Amino acid sequence: MNKTLPLIAILATLAAFPAAAQDAAAPVEAAAAVSADVAYIFNTLLFLMGGFLVMWMAAGFAMLEAGLVRSKNVTTQLFKNISLFAIAGIMYWLIGYNLMYPGDGWTVPGVIGQLFSPKAIDAVGTGDASAGYSAGSDFFFQLMFCATTASIVSGTLAERVKLWPFLIFTVVLTALIYPIEASWQWGGGFLSEMGFSDFAGSTLVHAAGGFAALAGAIVLGARTGKYRPDGRQQPMPGSNLALATLGTFILWLGWFGFNGASQLAIGSVNDAADVSRIFVNTNMAASGGAVAAIIVTQLLYGKIDLTMVLNGALAGLVSITAEPLMPSVFAAILIGGVGGAIAVFVVPLLDKFKIDDVVGAIPVHLVAGIWGTMVVPLTNDGTNFVTQAIGVLCVGGFTFGVSLVVWLILKATMGIRVSKEAEISGLDISEMGMEAYPDFVQAK
Amino acid sequence: MNKTLPLIAILATLAAFPAAAQDAAAPVEAAAAVSADVAYIFNTLLFLMGGFLVMWMAAGFAMLEAGLVRSKNVTTQLFKNISLFAIAGIMYWLIGYNLMYPGDGWTVPGVIGQLFSPKAIDAVGTGDASAGYSAGSDFFFQLMFCATTASIVSGTLAERVKLWPFLIFTVVLTALIYPIEASWQWGGGFLSEMGFSDFAGSTLVHAAGGFAALAGAIVLGARTGKYRPDGRQQPMPGSNLALATLGTFILWLGWFGFNGASQLAIGSVNDAADVSRIFVNTNMAASGGAVAAIIVTQLLYGKIDLTMVLNGALAGLVSITAEPLMPSVFAAILIGGVGGAIAVFVVPLLDKFKIDDVVGAIPVHLVAGIWGTMVVPLTNDGTNFVTQAIGVLCVGGFTFGVSLVVWLILKATMGIRVSKEAEISGLDISEMGMEAYPDFVQAK
Amino acid sequence: MNKTLPLIAILATLAAFPAAAQDAAAPVEAAAAVSADVAYIFNTLLFLMGGFLVMWMAAGFAMLEAGLVRSKNVTTQLFKNISLFAIAGIMYWLIGYNLMYPGDGWTVPGVIGQLFSPKAIDAVGTGDASAGYSAGSDFFFQLMFCATTASIVSGTLAERVKLWPFLIFTVVLTALIYPIEASWQWGGGFLSEMGFSDFAGSTLVHAAGGFAALAGAIVLGARTGKYRPDGRQQPMPGSNLALATLGTFILWLGWFGFNGASQLAIGSVNDAADVSRIFVNTNMAASGGAVAAIIVTQLLYGKIDLTMVLNGALAGLVSITAEPLMPSVFAAILIGGVGGAIAVFVVPLLDKFKIDDVVGAIPVHLVAGIWGTMVVPLTNDGTNFVTQAIGVLCVGGFTFGVSLVVWLILKATMGIRVSKEAEISGLDISEMGMEAYPDFVQAK
Repeated sequence: MNKTLPLIAILATLAAFPAAAQDAAAPVEAAAAVSADVAYIFNTLLFLMGGFLVMWMAAGFAMLEAGLVRSKNVTTQLFKNISLFAIAGIMYWLIGYNLMYPGDGWTVPGVIGQLFSPKAIDAVGTGDASAGYSAGSDFFFQLMFCATTASIVSGTLAERVKLWPFLIFTVVLTALIYPIEASWQWGGGFLSEMGFSDFAGSTLVHAAGGFAALAGAIVLGARTGKYRPDGRQQPMPGSNLALATLGTFILWLGWFGFNGASQLAIGSVNDAADVSRIFVNTNMAASGGAVAAIIVTQLLYGKIDLTMVLNGALAGLVSITAEPLMPSVFAAILIGGVGGAIAVFVVPLLDKFKIDDVVGAIPVHLVAGIWGTMVVPLTNDGTNFVTQAIGVLCVGGFTFGVSLVVWLILKATMGIRVSKEAEISGLDISEMGMEAYPDFVQAK
Repeated sequence: MNKTLPLIAILATLAAFPAAAQDAAAPVEAAAAVSADVAYIFNTLLFLMGGFLVMWMAAGFAMLEAGLVRSKNVTTQLFKNISLFAIAGIMYWLIGYNLMYPGDGWTVPGVIGQLFSPKAIDAVGTGDASAGYSAGSDFFFQLMFCATTASIVSGTLAERVKLWPFLIFTVVLTALIYPIEASWQWGGGFLSEMGFSDFAGSTLVHAAGGFAALAGAIVLGARTGKYRPDGRQQPMPGSNLALATLGTFILWLGWFGFNGASQLAIGSVNDAADVSRIFVNTNMAASGGAVAAIIVTQLLYGKIDLTMVLNGALAGLVSITAEPLMPSVFAAILIGGVGGAIAVFVVPLLDKFKIDDVVGAIPVHLVAGIWGTMVVPLTNDGTNFVTQAIGVLCVGGFTFGVSLVVWLILKATMGIRVSKEAEISGLDISEMGMEAYPDFVQAK
Repeated sequence: MNKTLPLIAILATLAAFPAAAQDAAAPVEAAAAVSADVAYIFNTLLFLMGGFLVMWMAAGFAMLEAGLVRSKNVTTQLFKNISLFAIAGIMYWLIGYNLMYPGDGWTVPGVIGQLFSPKAIDAVGTGDASAGYSAGSDFFFQLMFCATTASIVSGTLAERVKLWPFLIFTVVLTALIYPIEASWQWGGGFLSEMGFSDFAGSTLVHAAGGFAALAGAIVLGARTGKYRPDGRQQPMPGSNLALATLGTFILWLGWFGFNGASQLAIGSVNDAADVSRIFVNTNMAASGGAVAAIIVTQLLYGKIDLTMVLNGALAGLVSITAEPLMPSVFAAILIGGVGGAIAVFVVPLLDKFKIDDVVGAIPVHLVAGIWGTMVVPLTNDGTNFVTQAIGVLCVGGFTFGVSLVVWLILKATMGIRVSKEAEISGLDISEMGMEAYPDFVQAK
């Protein structure tokens, strides 16, 4: 014992070295990697930055739409954009967010979450690193997507929809329609189970907004005088292309947050590199869309059309939103380019069906959104066209159907359209009693 | 000894394991938490991001005010906004920053700091992690608050104040008035000692700016023709509501930096979660303010008033600024909502007293700022209404009093008001010789 | 042995403590500093933030230029700004980026890189911490500098250049001219070897853009009627100073990204402090430039000129861009102030030579850019005036020379100038068939 004990002691002592070293090595590795706390802060920061960039898109939609309507409807369009953003905030907090992320609390599993189980955001001073990011930052970011969906609708219905029915539709859209369809994928619902893929919402946000707008446009009808008896359409040019261009630049900028922060994490080297890829592809798809619209309008009409170029850039952005990470840069330019070209071709098609979409939101958000969603299987293993199509059909069918019913109910009860006289004199005077540009003499 | 030594050796060896493990565990914990260096970078980043967002608010004020004045005064209003921002930078660096954060160097303890002891920002390559954040980022962030205070004043006095007296007042405000009153709280002065609470400046920035504007408005008098002999007021509608709405969106966006970065740290999990709460509450208070203004103007006037909705959103933002962290989301909506309603009610009240506030800065910044400050004790332990009221009275009394004296001196010496002819032809022609919209035919 | 072994064991055990502690201490230090992964994420975040802020400058140029041209040319100016940004993205990806950072693959060592060796950005999920930042974020940031160079050109040539030749010039500038001259310094080329110093591009971006614009202006000639036979010049005031001011604020904001992220790293305490210094100096130089322009125009012309104040702020920003880190705050104000004053003096000088620069891009970007570059030796050891002058001459000579040739070829082949009738009726009608403000009655 006397002899062996010391030996054991020595062995034990020697053993202690590598053990200690190993113990110490673990933190070395941990330090070389990113600790849970640091990752939490990075991820939270990504949501906050992404969130404020997407919030800024609300201003982009406001400027784009204010620039593309006639001057007699500008005040109303501005009002709708800021009020829908305010309403979205309240409704998404009250109902939508809970409905969209049911966890285990589905009312109808995978289809409808719960109406009344408000999710708490972290109490003061109680961030939990193991959660990966702060609850408040996630809510903030997700709210902005809900508001974006609502922003898409307002442009299409401009220049003839009544204020209050529009606001009520916004309440339903942001509290119920968007959260339910988005829960099918991002809340872990049946589309997500099925293998549907929509990274940042080409379908869930943009096509959905477009479908809601389409339903509204059909129920509402075209603007008075837009489609002439001789079959031709009356041009009703936007009153301020500087604002429309500003709005497009704002949306382009905001989209870096929209797609980039949809990576949902930047707390590791790989995530940071992936967010960077997304930024690049997002920019390139917009470039592709704009350049495609330049070329197509030059060839088709013999002149470049600025509003088409703006919509081309936006369609490029919508197109890449379903998958901004996997495509190569070249593929991103092509995906965006085709999206931009589609937008140019769909505008006259809608007019053929006498669907009066004042700002082109349906070509840009609905059609390019579907394009972007359907092209995902080309770059993403584990996805296929059938599942993607099912996703589009489910989201589209539900959003279009429910929106149609809501618009019809609103039409039957309070009416959704201003009188012809009000429309001709402009909604700013008739609905709001306030002109946007009272000092400038208006052309008749 | 022979027998015990080995035993000791064994025990010591065994003890070495947990000891080593503990030693190793310490870095594990250190790595799990956030190192001083990483926290320093995060905190600095928060100040820089917050700073550039608040800098962007200067553009928001410029657009809001340019949109709410008549077209003949737009160039002048734009000039005032960009020049006050430039002046604020220089004066706050030269005098204000030192005066506001005296450390131990008070001239009158707790009341007035030191005029001439310029604080250095870090030399190149010498960041000090133990400081918690870089001196430059703090200066950058704090400067933007000083500039915001000055921005508030310019809107109220629009359309009749002379350029140079306005610039001189801006010099005094940004070098002396704001830094001194803000030092009472944020520089560790007597209000802070007393337990006054104003998280991001409902009183210190917004009410203070509003008090300075009120003093100016009283000395300056109303615009010619604004208050008619029959007791009614002449509407003088803003010339560009698209710009005004853009300005409001910019301010809304910038406010995430204003309130969020006022947490002063994002280098820990708790701080990151708290900054997120602040983002959410800030957004929700703005939503509440806008929705309240929609409802109140619809009920009061039978029509929704866009400029009131814009001011409602801003009043909501001002209201939550005194305490954006502690209230629940629901409380934030209420606080903002009451703020928005207050703004709507105060506008006609000011007209009753013939105080001509062109853009509504007094209702939005002064009155909602006081409301936000007084409501803090409902959510914050350790605060009370009396202390909050004392804070408002001290800041308000000082800022209003000194501003009044400065405006009176300026009036007595160089005159602060343009001639009636110059006012009628517009300040753009009379003061600057440059129209903002020379190509558009102006309505008379 | 029996006696000594235990002793050794004890000593060894005791020794194990400090050894373990030391092993553990290493990670403590590692944790106190910033791990490679965390630094990588911070640096990547800096590039992404800097990149989106500089992207936003494209909107700033669009608004500035749209505000400074006459209303009949606004649509065209907006189009040029958004299309050049789209084109820059594609060309810089296709050719420019590779050409600018040749690594060891120079075609002519230190002078011309390689045309066809596209640099890959990180594949999905393969960020490499040892690279210091993600390849995608670097590309994203550098692309925005290329686009900025192109933005500078469009303003000078406004109101008379044809669309397609302008777009073709943009292709050459963003694919070849900018990347080649920038490679001389930032790609490790001969200027960098020589000790030339240009932190964020006073010369490489701003003067280069200005030289390209100057070449274009000379080949293109002045606007019809600008320089009257009697030797005086015809004022052609900008149509929307609100937009011009908005554009300036956007540029001011974006410049924090332009200069701040040019530090290229924020993953250490020192870098974070340095980025903060850069933010402060950038802001202060702009303030100095604006205030200088206020004072100089008041003294020279008896009235403050808003467009000069805007250009003064921008010239201040350009001036500090060559070295925003080393100067003291006071020096930054002076450097910017002199830059602002220079801009005011150069505008009439250009008119003397009948060089018609519609928005003042040459005084602001070229002349202030040279000033900023030449003043670097006052603050930076290891630089000297001769090397700085050589850098300016090389970049200027090359950019001006190649641009001149390209413009001359375009003139000889497809023509670069619209007809006199088209110019008088406005490019919006003649080139694009779309007015920017169709609802407002235009003054003749």
